[in-house]
Amino acid sequence: MLMPDSGLQHLFDWHLEDDLTWEEQLARTRHHYHRPRSLRRPDTLRSLGLLFFNSSLRTRTSMEVAAARLGAHTSVIIPGSGVWGMEWKDGIRMDGKSVEHIREAIGVLSRYYDALGVRLFATGTDYAIDQSEARFKKILETATVPVINLESALYHPCQALADAATIREQFNDEVKGRRFVLSWAWHPRALAQAVPNSALLMATRLGMQVTIARPKGFELDPEIMRLAESYTSKHGFSLTETDDQDAACEGADVIYAKAWGSQLRYDDSDQEKALRDQYQSWQVREHHLGNAAFMHCLPVRRGVVVEDAVLNSSQAIHLLQAEFRLHAQIAILERAWNLI
Amino acid sequence: MLMPDSGLQHLFDWHLEDDLTWEEQLARTRHHYHRPRSLRRPDTLRSLGLLFFNSSLRTRTSMEVAAARLGAHTSVIIPGSGVWGMEWKDGIRMDGKSVEHIREAIGVLSRYYDALGVRLFATGTDYAIDQSEARFKKILETATVPVINLESALYHPCQALADAATIREQFNDEVKGRRFVLSWAWHPRALAQAVPNSALLMATRLGMQVTIARPKGFELDPEIMRLAESYTSKHGFSLTETDDQDAACEGADVIYAKAWGSQLRYDDSDQEKALRDQYQSWQVREHHLGNAAFMHCLPVRRGVVVEDAVLNSSQAIHLLQAEFRLHAQIAILERAWNLI
Amino acid sequence: MLMPDSGLQHLFDWHLEDDLTWEEQLARTRHHYHRPRSLRRPDTLRSLGLLFFNSSLRTRTSMEVAAARLGAHTSVIIPGSGVWGMEWKDGIRMDGKSVEHIREAIGVLSRYYDALGVRLFATGTDYAIDQSEARFKKILETATVPVINLESALYHPCQALADAATIREQFNDEVKGRRFVLSWAWHPRALAQAVPNSALLMATRLGMQVTIARPKGFELDPEIMRLAESYTSKHGFSLTETDDQDAACEGADVIYAKAWGSQLRYDDSDQEKALRDQYQSWQVREHHLGNAAFMHCLPVRRGVVVEDAVLNSSQAIHLLQAEFRLHAQIAILERAWNLI
Repeated sequence: MLMPDSGLQHLFDWHLEDDLTWEEQLARTRHHYHRPRSLRRPDTLRSLGLLFFNSSLRTRTSMEVAAARLGAHTSVIIPGSGVWGMEWKDGIRMDGKSVEHIREAIGVLSRYYDALGVRLFATGTDYAIDQSEARFKKILETATVPVINLESALYHPCQALADAATIREQFNDEVKGRRFVLSWAWHPRALAQAVPNSALLMATRLGMQVTIARPKGFELDPEIMRLAESYTSKHGFSLTETDDQDAACEGADVIYAKAWGSQLRYDDSDQEKALRDQYQSWQVREHHLGNAAFMHCLPVRRGVVVEDAVLNSSQAIHLLQAEFRLHAQIAILERAWNLI
Repeated sequence: MLMPDSGLQHLFDWHLEDDLTWEEQLARTRHHYHRPRSLRRPDTLRSLGLLFFNSSLRTRTSMEVAAARLGAHTSVIIPGSGVWGMEWKDGIRMDGKSVEHIREAIGVLSRYYDALGVRLFATGTDYAIDQSEARFKKILETATVPVINLESALYHPCQALADAATIREQFNDEVKGRRFVLSWAWHPRALAQAVPNSALLMATRLGMQVTIARPKGFELDPEIMRLAESYTSKHGFSLTETDDQDAACEGADVIYAKAWGSQLRYDDSDQEKALRDQYQSWQVREHHLGNAAFMHCLPVRRGVVVEDAVLNSSQAIHLLQAEFRLHAQIAILERAWNLI
Repeated sequence: MLMPDSGLQHLFDWHLEDDLTWEEQLARTRHHYHRPRSLRRPDTLRSLGLLFFNSSLRTRTSMEVAAARLGAHTSVIIPGSGVWGMEWKDGIRMDGKSVEHIREAIGVLSRYYDALGVRLFATGTDYAIDQSEARFKKILETATVPVINLESALYHPCQALADAATIREQFNDEVKGRRFVLSWAWHPRALAQAVPNSALLMATRLGMQVTIARPKGFELDPEIMRLAESYTSKHGFSLTETDDQDAACEGADVIYAKAWGSQLRYDDSDQEKALRDQYQSWQVREHHLGNAAFMHCLPVRRGVVVEDAVLNSSQAIHLLQAEFRLHAQIAILERAWNLI
């Protein structure tokens, strides 16, 4: 999670880490899962500032509990909700609604907190900003303390670390070569691709045989695909894509469901919706399940993304995934604060 | 507060407890009031998740302080405010506004927190849901940690425990046989009956002689009335109802004011309002007070539910009631976490 | 910060304190800045309730961290956001939107918390209320624990204490006689005068030579001006006012920028806006800076109140000011809780 072009420790893109660091982080995550109350609480009080530009249930609460278990204080900061609205653009005349520039906000918070967690989804309207992570990078540039990515335009690294630990746990470490299906699902809104990106990179890095099942027009970003292919080829496999959901799910070890919008949304959101709405039948159903474990990052729309019967079955491990968020984030905070 | 039909410890309906447990809880509450800073803070960090589907001042803040005094961390979770909106119905296709099902939310939070507190008022529109506590029960079914009722459709048990301790304190334990008047008051909105239900059950269980003063049409639920009568008859008294507020208050030891809507609201809310608005003069006034202590759960509309002069008099013990909330909830958390 | 007419300790108007107390507070603030982690955390848990009637980034987060460093728990309470809306008027019939009277709210919170912090800006519409601090005084009258002013109608004492410590730090204690320019700036809204009031009183009390640069019609309150003049004359200087921003800034040691509305806003807000909008060119620009340190309390509108180049220069110490908020408030809490 070190930014390659930065001397600072920014817990940003875990897939940029070397294998040893990634394995250590995974091992710590699973250690905390098995011994959740064995933490040493340090003498020095640390404070964690969590900046949420978007809604959250799991991320916020699991970060709060993770920090509390390490004896740290957490503040939750929601711009626009009891906190001044924020401006992103540089060099402009701020005579509109935004009262505070992100540069001042991050500069100030860096002086109060020992780490910042930031959730900042894709704009969904400006491809250049989203594709380059321009906003998240502005935060990284400005912050003088570790910044933890709580889901940015392209990545959801805390989720990916938790997911990887969940899969290792589920299969007693016998993960390599198992079949992982990332299945697109219909959703009433054009959601961002951070979760499918991170899930794809995580599964390929674990050495799983990965198939992406998705309708035509719902390709993931070419750069993410190239990175996933580099992981997969390292393990001697190839990455498969198909628009046949039924065939993809046959014999799967893991079915990971996720809805996401087409890249088309940046050019023509009406046309994107028209395209997406042709695929309302794309949903993970009981007949897909076989012996597979079912995964989803949550929140999930029941009856839309997945049938109730799947979520209610004992093969659904979505709550275990959520539980691992807590332990993954304890591991991330330990690393941010050199507590290991 | 054990659900009779559940093996789990759910701090739900305190009146379902045996007398010994109820007396112990009351004794602990008063102990903490007299020795507020004598708590042992346990070595293990615990976390408390507070889920508020409705507004709160006292309940939220006193729970936070109660938990802090026990060395525990608290998160406040307000669905729809920085947190995903939630779906209650089972078996539906979630293609509307709700992003997360209550079953996932409670499942996840049970994995992070050592107890959950939930405030979930009556719908006021669906009698079947409210009368059966269908929503709160869905939470109880799903949770795997103790759930503390912070006011549900029918009950406000934390308030009732605090109120009972306040009354014992106020009368130096000489409570049996004293006259308790639960007085209806007018209010611009048709409020739920959880507080009058819990106040009625609490006072009858304490062995007080209880009179309900209320206009015709503002009956409490028949099942609650039956339960209250069983308490009262056990103590050799009978439960009285009257629509003569002046007569009811004469010679009272406690006047407990509360506004609530008629059950009619479920069938015809316009007619309920028309009925209610006939009784705008129902308000606890100075001439009612005599030697009685005045109680109210708060928040209270001054000049509507009660005259300023009553609230400002030394006979008003509403702030003492509020203070006892803190100590009652410390006792409840100690029980939830086996700290006694 | 003792109210002269009150036996209670209310951390309200620091300028009402004697010089010794003020110097001690400043010294503690700077001590914490230099040794931020050397705090003793007391055995007794304390709780701090923060009541925000207006938005905040720095104040809320720095108070949370300050309290956490002293081992205290903090609750943030935002009336109208998950908390009942509040009524200020006495003796009225509360049949409108407000559900809870401020007297009950403060009475209750005094029973839960060991100190309250309150942010309550000027109404901007009722001069009598603002000028007399009528609302803040109602809170002081009702509270039974120390109340910390987190910006009221007329004062922002935490900011002023932090600013004074920043200036002492910046000039290695050689502050007396230095030139301090309080420069008005244009802003799209008619902001309150609490910050300029407190900055003016702070700088004159430090013995700086103070100039207020502002257009005609943007006078500060006569009582504040008289108080500032009394400080300044004690140090053998006189207080200067001018509408020539360029001339005022020449040779300044500190330029403190702040936008505020004219008192005219109470009589005719349209006319006030028309007057204010004549001065859109009033902005601190690079050519003003010379060798001066640039200060601003934040949030600041870039390109409106101040040029980007000024904020981005190494002479801008606005982030240091913000950092000192944390240390000032640790000092204030220590005093409120007798921890020194």
